[in-house]
Amino acid sequence: MVLTSKEKPPNPEQMMTIFTTGGTIDKVYFDAKSEFEIGDPMIGEVLREANVTPTFEIRQLMRKDSLELTDADRQIIFEAVAECASERVIITHGTDTMVKTAQVLAPLAKQRTIVLVGSLSPARFRNTDAVFNIGFAMGVVQALSHGVFVTMNGCIFHPDHVVKNRTANRFEAV
Amino acid sequence: MVLTSKEKPPNPEQMMTIFTTGGTIDKVYFDAKSEFEIGDPMIGEVLREANVTPTFEIRQLMRKDSLELTDADRQIIFEAVAECASERVIITHGTDTMVKTAQVLAPLAKQRTIVLVGSLSPARFRNTDAVFNIGFAMGVVQALSHGVFVTMNGCIFHPDHVVKNRTANRFEAV
Amino acid sequence: MVLTSKEKPPNPEQMMTIFTTGGTIDKVYFDAKSEFEIGDPMIGEVLREANVTPTFEIRQLMRKDSLELTDADRQIIFEAVAECASERVIITHGTDTMVKTAQVLAPLAKQRTIVLVGSLSPARFRNTDAVFNIGFAMGVVQALSHGVFVTMNGCIFHPDHVVKNRTANRFEAV
Amino acid sequence: MVLTSKEKPPNPEQMMTIFTTGGTIDKVYFDAKSEFEIGDPMIGEVLREANVTPTFEIRQLMRKDSLELTDADRQIIFEAVAECASERVIITHGTDTMVKTAQVLAPLAKQRTIVLVGSLSPARFRNTDAVFNIGFAMGVVQALSHGVFVTMNGCIFHPDHVVKNRTANRFEAV
Repeated sequence: MVLTSKEKPPNPEQMMTIFTTGGTIDKVYFDAKSEFEIGDPMIGEVLREANVTPTFEIRQLMRKDSLELTDADRQIIFEAVAECASERVIITHGTDTMVKTAQVLAPLAKQRTIVLVGSLSPARFRNTDAVFNIGFAMGVVQALSHGVFVTMNGCIFHPDHVVKNRTANRFEAV
Repeated sequence: MVLTSKEKPPNPEQMMTIFTTGGTIDKVYFDAKSEFEIGDPMIGEVLREANVTPTFEIRQLMRKDSLELTDADRQIIFEAVAECASERVIITHGTDTMVKTAQVLAPLAKQRTIVLVGSLSPARFRNTDAVFNIGFAMGVVQALSHGVFVTMNGCIFHPDHVVKNRTANRFEAV
Repeated sequence: MVLTSKEKPPNPEQMMTIFTTGGTIDKVYFDAKSEFEIGDPMIGEVLREANVTPTFEIRQLMRKDSLELTDADRQIIFEAVAECASERVIITHGTDTMVKTAQVLAPLAKQRTIVLVGSLSPARFRNTDAVFNIGFAMGVVQALSHGVFVTMNGCIFHPDHVVKNRTANRFEAV
Repeated sequence: MVLTSKEKPPNPEQMMTIFTTGGTIDKVYFDAKSEFEIGDPMIGEVLREANVTPTFEIRQLMRKDSLELTDADRQIIFEAVAECASERVIITHGTDTMVKTAQVLAPLAKQRTIVLVGSLSPARFRNTDAVFNIGFAMGVVQALSHGVFVTMNGCIFHPDHVVKNRTANRFEAV
């Protein structure tokens, strides 16, 4: 996409919708239970700390590890995206089955830019990929006009051409 | 840009070049001098912590507050970008005159994607926009095919249509 | 303890021994296993980042949630402290049964200062009590001449006069 | 100080007073001015994040680099400490002349425990000694009964037996 001085980049005034579904990105530790659970979504806090000016809304759909997402859950995600008015959608999601959810959303690609993102380290950690990944996803969702994409490890993947390499703990193009 | 299953997103195997010029993003505090200076560039550390897989090289051009950049400095930046083989270039830069440098680079837009990014808070700070901004810039530089862009506050700006609003401390489209 | 100009505070040149036993303070997230485990002890990294100059050695005894510590484990801890040459000992420990371990160590109080400390949030978290608690414990272990103490929530507790209030998630004097 | 089961450690119910005077510990970056200044004191935020339970009050006396403190400033600090009801006082202070201020406070040592602390890296930094140092100072101020102390680099120093080694950027006993 070549922008001449007559063209302007995508209008940041159009609202973007962010759906949260759970995953490592939102994990928090509850000492009283001696265990980690998925806590309140962190993406809003990350966007505020970065002083982003585009308008966005955040809607929590569920709080699940992505290994526990069912077909019914994916249907909920599909319908939420289908019904929402925004052309630009980010979905925070566990990384284990992110690709599967992305593929389910393919029919919605014609009129929207849909980006799925998560992280391998919780956003609440001192050292994490979460903040970078959220920034990367925000950049991609504004730059690309239509399609469904998975963004991890600083790469933009097409859902039909990516796998999570569980041994190496990263996403790779195939 | 619509991606069908036959098309793949930009190839992460192509190396990207990152030029660093200074700015708030790299500021560090030297207690012995009771002052802050621009330290070693932080972008490499940010990309490593985020586990990005695309290949990149980092080349430091200078370490200046952007208010102190001269026409000669901008010429150095121009020539470095013109001579580099990468099609995708990120330049970390102080925010005060980032737009001016972006405009100087306009002739190089035909065959490259050039993204200028900085931050209003140093990357070494606990609370900072730096990490998000670097992620955002990485997403944009891979998603857009050609052009020169300024990426701040979660927006993609064309260099002829943006100003830094110094009172509100943010970038705005004009 | 009143220090006059003739007296000097405890000699930082004497080595201090730090025993690590596990607990929340060292929890780390393993994405590949979708779970949190006790990782490498963090106290060394915390002390280095704080530029502490007293000499210390760190010896890992075990990596357990303190609810899983057995009498045999406490015997291991007892013997390790009894045999070590240092007069000043810090033990990082899970908070749930820290008081019990402190009471077991009571016979060793005559010739040593022994401080048990942990945290309610992992040291690897961005927001945590771990760093403050480690600093607090280091201050106490150098300031008090003999005894066994539990240090949590910015308080110095005698092992016979403290409980962990699990509902309020804090330690309280009784 | 040996604590037997009949003795309890210092009562955390007695309020502690914290005076803030400035220094590196509170430095913040103002991008609009392209410079760093001393910002709001950070110690309250640090204590809240650590969930400390003892009662404390924070009183800001000034916001200066300690190289800029005058005899008049030290008189202000002296009078503030002399007039305050608390037996336990922490003073956050720039490190360059912390020892001098500590010596000025010597006459107040008989009835109070006064601890001076600062940091070589701002508390707002991601990597900092500030949080550890504040914890250390809180531990010392509760453990020692009377006296004036300087606490830096994980050591307790008597004001007449310490210098800041500016080349090595640390405090050393002399």
